[in-house]
Amino acid sequence: MQDAVYSHSYAVIMAGGKGERFWPLSTERRPKQLLALAGGKPLVVQAMDRLEGVVPPDHILIATNASLVEPIRALLGEGHPASVLGEPVGRDTAAAIAAATAWILRRDPEAVFCVLTADHIIGDLPVFRNILRQGLKLCSENDVLATIGIEPAFPSSGFGYIQAGEAWKEEGGVAFRRVRRFVEKPDAETARKYVESGEYSWNSGMFVWAARNILRAFETHRPQLAGRVRVWAAAAGDAEFAAALARDFPALEKISIDYAVMEKASNVVVCRGTFAWDDVGSWPALEAHLPNDAEKNATLGDVELLDARSNIVVGGDGRLTALVGVEGLVVVQAPGVTLVCAKEKAQEIKALVTRLRGDPARAPLL
Amino acid sequence: MQDAVYSHSYAVIMAGGKGERFWPLSTERRPKQLLALAGGKPLVVQAMDRLEGVVPPDHILIATNASLVEPIRALLGEGHPASVLGEPVGRDTAAAIAAATAWILRRDPEAVFCVLTADHIIGDLPVFRNILRQGLKLCSENDVLATIGIEPAFPSSGFGYIQAGEAWKEEGGVAFRRVRRFVEKPDAETARKYVESGEYSWNSGMFVWAARNILRAFETHRPQLAGRVRVWAAAAGDAEFAAALARDFPALEKISIDYAVMEKASNVVVCRGTFAWDDVGSWPALEAHLPNDAEKNATLGDVELLDARSNIVVGGDGRLTALVGVEGLVVVQAPGVTLVCAKEKAQEIKALVTRLRGDPARAPLL
Repeated sequence: MQDAVYSHSYAVIMAGGKGERFWPLSTERRPKQLLALAGGKPLVVQAMDRLEGVVPPDHILIATNASLVEPIRALLGEGHPASVLGEPVGRDTAAAIAAATAWILRRDPEAVFCVLTADHIIGDLPVFRNILRQGLKLCSENDVLATIGIEPAFPSSGFGYIQAGEAWKEEGGVAFRRVRRFVEKPDAETARKYVESGEYSWNSGMFVWAARNILRAFETHRPQLAGRVRVWAAAAGDAEFAAALARDFPALEKISIDYAVMEKASNVVVCRGTFAWDDVGSWPALEAHLPNDAEKNATLGDVELLDARSNIVVGGDGRLTALVGVEGLVVVQAPGVTLVCAKEKAQEIKALVTRLRGDPARAPLL
Repeated sequence: MQDAVYSHSYAVIMAGGKGERFWPLSTERRPKQLLALAGGKPLVVQAMDRLEGVVPPDHILIATNASLVEPIRALLGEGHPASVLGEPVGRDTAAAIAAATAWILRRDPEAVFCVLTADHIIGDLPVFRNILRQGLKLCSENDVLATIGIEPAFPSSGFGYIQAGEAWKEEGGVAFRRVRRFVEKPDAETARKYVESGEYSWNSGMFVWAARNILRAFETHRPQLAGRVRVWAAAAGDAEFAAALARDFPALEKISIDYAVMEKASNVVVCRGTFAWDDVGSWPALEAHLPNDAEKNATLGDVELLDARSNIVVGGDGRLTALVGVEGLVVVQAPGVTLVCAKEKAQEIKALVTRLRGDPARAPLL
C-alpha cells in the first residue's frame, strides 16, 4: 500500500473544538477531543491511530487552538512524529484549513490531504481507511473537492445534510457522486424526507483534496485568503511560518469551510461513509460506546451499582462512585467536581456552566 | 440552679452506635454520632452542649466502643472536662450502663445520673433541660427508674413504645406517671392504636436514676452484673478500673437495659418528652434538619443546583457537587466516595455496604 499516492498523502485533524456538553470532564483546557470518553485513548489520539497505513505518521498535522498545543503535545508524548499547529486566534474552519494547506504546501506542492475530525467516534476501520485511500488516490488525479457524507442512522435535525447528484467515479469499491447541494440543519419533518429519499447524507466535516486544488478553490471563492496561503507557504522557516500566522490570523474572516468554499464550488463530490460514525454530542450519546450491563448501565472506572438501571456513570478522580436505586442518570466524576444529571436534561448542562462562569472562583473547574 | 442536686448530677452519653445508614459519610471509624449531620457540630458534641446547666461539665461521661475513644477525644479537643469510657468489647446497653454506674459510684456514691443518646437531634432545649433537671431532682429523692418517653409524632412501627399508667408525681411542670409496660416495635395498625390512645410514647433510650438505685435494680434483676459493678466501683485507681473492665467485659451477657432491667422493674416511671426529637435514622430523615430551598432541596456544603427538586445533597470532600434536572435523590460526598441514591431506596444502602465489605480493598471506605 506504500505507493506513490501514500508518500504524497497528508492528514489534517481538526482538534479545535471546545464543547461544554461533556462538562465537568471537558473544560476549556481539556475539551472533549482530549478525553478518553470511550476506546481507552483520548479521542484525538484515536483519530491519529485511525490513519495507520493511510498517510505516513509524520504527515499528520493536528490543527487546534493555541492554548491546546501543549496539552496535545503532552498527550502524544515525546518523539511522536505528528505535528501540532496552533491557530493564533479562532477563525473557524476556513482559516484553519487555509493554514494547514500552507503548512502542507511548504512540505510538498504535490500533496493530497484529508481533513478529519478529532472528536468523533469511528468504527469499521478497514472501511474507513479504504474510503480515505480511494479518496486520496482520486483527488491526486482529479481537480475535485471530495467530502465524506455519513449514511444517516436516523432523521436527525442536528446535522447539516449533503444531497448527492449523478455518479462521478468509483474506485476500489468506493462510489463518488457529484454533490447537488449542501443544506443546513433541517426540521424533523424535512430530515425524515431527506433520509427517505436516499439521496442525502450527514455532513461530517471530513474532506479530501489535493493541496493545489483547495488553494485553487480559495482563489476562486476567497481570493484574499488564498493570498495569505501563498504568503504563508513561502515562509523561509518554521519560525517565519508561525510569525506570519500570528500576524495575519486576527484580521481573517471568521467563516466555516462549508460557507466559504464547499457550498459554492462546482467540483464537489461525495462518497458515502458506510463506517460506524458518532459525533457523541452529549453525555447520553456516550451510552452506546461504553460497556453496558444487564440493567443497561453504561459505566467507566470505579463504579458500584445496586438496584440501578439505565444510568451512564463515568467514575474517576480517585473515588468510588456508588449508585443505589436510581434510573436514567448521568453521573460524572471530574477533578474537583461531581455531576449528577437526568439523561433527558443533559442539554441543561451548558446553562449550569454559563452560571458557574459568573463566579471567578469556579474557573479551575471550567 | 447550681444547687445540691446539680453538684451530685452526672450524665452518661451513649455513643457506641455504628450505623451503616449514613454511609458513606458514616463508617466504622466515623459513625453517625461523630458526624455534623446538622447543627454545625458533631452530634456527640451537641449532646454534651445540651447538658449546659444540667450537670457540671466534668460530670459528663461518654460511653463508646474502645475504637472510638481516640476519635471522640480528638473531637472534644485538648483539656475538655468530659470523660470518655471505652467499652473493651460491645456487650449492649446493660453492660455499658453498668460500667458507667461503677465509674460514677467511684466518684460520688450519692450521684444521680441521666443516660442520654449521642445520635439523636433534639430541639426546644429549655424544655429538654427542665425535664432532665426535674428528673434528676425526683430521682435523687425517690427510688425510681425514670425514662423519658417521646411524644409520638406519627404512628411509627420503627420504635418500641412505653405505656404509661397512673400519675406518680409532678415537679417543675413535668408530670411523671408509673409505667404500665414496655412494648416491642408494633405493626402499623397497632402503632396507630397506641398513638390514638394517648397512653403510649416512643422509647427513646433516655433514663434518669440515682446510681445506688440502678445498682439496686441490677441486684434484683441481674445479680451477677451488680457484683461486677461493685468490684469495678471499688477499683483503687483509674488504671485498675480500666483493667477490671477489660478483664470482665468479654464474659458479660450481651443484653439491652430494656430487656435486662426496665421491662422487669416495678419502680419505673415515665415523663413525656415534649421537646423536638428525631433519631434521624437514615439519609431521608435529614431533610427536616438542613436548610431547604424553594424547590425543597436540602443541601449542605458546596452544591450547585439547576432545575433540581426535593433532593438531599451533602457536599464535601473538597469538591463541587452539581445537580441538573434531577428529583428525589440523596447525593453524598464522603472521603473517597460519592453516593447517589433514590430517597425511597435509602434502606438499600446497608446491602451495598455489606457487599463492599466482601472486598478487602474497600475497607478504607467502610
